[in-house]
Amino acid sequence: MRLLPETNLLSCVVSISSDQAILLYADSARNGDMRYFSGLHVPDPFIALRIGGRKIGVFNALEFGRARKEAALDEVLALEPLRDQARERWPSSPPGPAEIILLIAERHVVDRLTVPQDFPAGLFERLRRRGLTIEVAEGPILPEREFKTPAEARAIREGNRIAAVGIAAAHRVLAQSKIRANRLHHDGDVLTSERLKFAIETACLEAGGVSLDTIAAGGDQGCDPHHRGTGPLRPNQLIIVDVFPRAQKSGYHGDMTRAFLRGRASDAQHALVDAVRTAQLAALAKIRDGANGRDVHHACTAVFAARGYETKATPKGSVGFFHGTGHGLGLDVHELPRMSGAVDYTLKAGAVVTVEPGLYYPGLGACRIEDVVQVTAGRPRALSSYSYEWELR
Amino acid sequence: MRLLPETNLLSCVVSISSDQAILLYADSARNGDMRYFSGLHVPDPFIALRIGGRKIGVFNALEFGRARKEAALDEVLALEPLRDQARERWPSSPPGPAEIILLIAERHVVDRLTVPQDFPAGLFERLRRRGLTIEVAEGPILPEREFKTPAEARAIREGNRIAAVGIAAAHRVLAQSKIRANRLHHDGDVLTSERLKFAIETACLEAGGVSLDTIAAGGDQGCDPHHRGTGPLRPNQLIIVDVFPRAQKSGYHGDMTRAFLRGRASDAQHALVDAVRTAQLAALAKIRDGANGRDVHHACTAVFAARGYETKATPKGSVGFFHGTGHGLGLDVHELPRMSGAVDYTLKAGAVVTVEPGLYYPGLGACRIEDVVQVTAGRPRALSSYSYEWELR
Repeated sequence: MRLLPETNLLSCVVSISSDQAILLYADSARNGDMRYFSGLHVPDPFIALRIGGRKIGVFNALEFGRARKEAALDEVLALEPLRDQARERWPSSPPGPAEIILLIAERHVVDRLTVPQDFPAGLFERLRRRGLTIEVAEGPILPEREFKTPAEARAIREGNRIAAVGIAAAHRVLAQSKIRANRLHHDGDVLTSERLKFAIETACLEAGGVSLDTIAAGGDQGCDPHHRGTGPLRPNQLIIVDVFPRAQKSGYHGDMTRAFLRGRASDAQHALVDAVRTAQLAALAKIRDGANGRDVHHACTAVFAARGYETKATPKGSVGFFHGTGHGLGLDVHELPRMSGAVDYTLKAGAVVTVEPGLYYPGLGACRIEDVVQVTAGRPRALSSYSYEWELR
Repeated sequence: MRLLPETNLLSCVVSISSDQAILLYADSARNGDMRYFSGLHVPDPFIALRIGGRKIGVFNALEFGRARKEAALDEVLALEPLRDQARERWPSSPPGPAEIILLIAERHVVDRLTVPQDFPAGLFERLRRRGLTIEVAEGPILPEREFKTPAEARAIREGNRIAAVGIAAAHRVLAQSKIRANRLHHDGDVLTSERLKFAIETACLEAGGVSLDTIAAGGDQGCDPHHRGTGPLRPNQLIIVDVFPRAQKSGYHGDMTRAFLRGRASDAQHALVDAVRTAQLAALAKIRDGANGRDVHHACTAVFAARGYETKATPKGSVGFFHGTGHGLGLDVHELPRMSGAVDYTLKAGAVVTVEPGLYYPGLGACRIEDVVQVTAGRPRALSSYSYEWELR
């Protein structure tokens, strides 16, 4: 998780040269590019530029001291003196980020800046009206983010260690739960999706991560892939547990899914889980430097087709396998590359992807199994690890 | 928290009429406008429009079923058929959000759309190139967000109930802690900022909220207002505890700060805390319909000036009171209105604001006290409640 819909369209990738002047304006708590660029967690938007290969950031009094100490920037500027200069220069209007950006661009004799797709349109327009040539990158503004350094791969592995702690917490609670009158009970109370998510999220917190939007959805709820789960959990039904925590120190994510069943699985449930795991292994066998993400996806659909699992839209929603096989993972839960039937995307060594086929049939139930690997010239390198035991008798 | 720096500049507010056609493109997990508009938590960006007063949203297969059931929209459209139409209409390029927006605009005979300041520049440019007239709102795109309905005020009160649960957890741990050799100990271990934050965040989770970026910072760390705190906590020093959780059900936030001291406070620490609480009461006395946020802020600075607490920038960072007195609170932690010395902003009945003066002097320590109120024609209505006991002997 999160799943990437088949229909989510990204722009094509174009390379940005490292000496091109770029401009970012975002907070780095939510914006992966800004976090990657600045190496600093800042909850409010700030200005950052790369000019002639030099990385520059502008920080207000609340962040300046910390930025000087911790930011991965070549130059850390204080906002307030720049604002005073902007006020002198343009006395008729209160100075905002646009005016401060103009001052810095002038100082570096730069008259053309490239911004990311998600750059705020208001600031974009104001810079244009002030005479700056500003253009939107057609692909990612920091294409190097797609290829993870060994340190980044370690950070993602740590994210998945935290995810596995969350999955293990759910596994343990479900295994210990008692079956009474078509409900699961734990610690003397009815076991609900909410209680299971609390156990997962607390375990992740203690392990050093924050798990948001955790999924613990049983039965037909699990057949709606973005249903987070609510109410009592029942025996003999598949329960999707999907955990994608952010490691608090590094900002990198883990992402892991298992489906569990407390009680006894039917033959159809066994067949469903076996098909999904087989599809995952088929996908993993295809992942290597130079492979097309679409072919990886088709390795899964081929397994499902061969076993008679049909994918189709119904008036009540889609059934079968109707999301992508995987997505890049790093500072964002969804980043490049893509592995889906909807796009051609060449996987390259260093990229980190989730591998998460799933099948969803209301009435029978849902199964999704997700792990994370790094692409290499040969077999992909596992960056997550947890058992595939699922039937908890 | 979070604090709003004095220098954070917002555009002025211009009213947008309710029959103006507006366009949003964002996820609603992170974007407050989209959450407000759609009433739905969706983790990936989607298209939403208001045309002739009708609210329209476009959802892919992963979200469509849930959106039909739960979204606060007049019309819920499926993405996939629109994408197929766009592919027929523009066969030369893969259809993206721009093409789907164009189809909907044509269908409603709309040729001019207004977008928010933070609308993605890439999509903005693509829509323009496709011939649509698109302009950025100069003020908030949904100005009604500033004025909270009774249901919203209740949701914020619930957010603050969760915040108070977090503060109470910290209060309890600190009160129970033992003083040994200039360190605090709890449960047989050294009490660190990290352990205190874990106690707070777990308590918030259990109470139904997610607390991110929680602050538990002692001594000089607390003097850096965005330092989240790290390492052992010590006796006889002020410890800032700032908790701003999001209620998981509603998406609305609470925001509360207290400063605690385990041990015995010095006279100077007593004077500091008393000045901050007096400033907070002075600010509260000024808050009413029609008041200027700048005057509320100056009520605090007047208290500090009268007591000899100087505010100034030093080479190591600022000391004194160098952030705004408060900010709007709702689906975002920072929203309108503003109460700071840097801007004129008229408070109007229904607005919800934090009131959080603070003083920061490395060596002596830091104190910030924060509560949340709703503006009325008379005395503001309290939306948060927790004791002001702070010296834990």
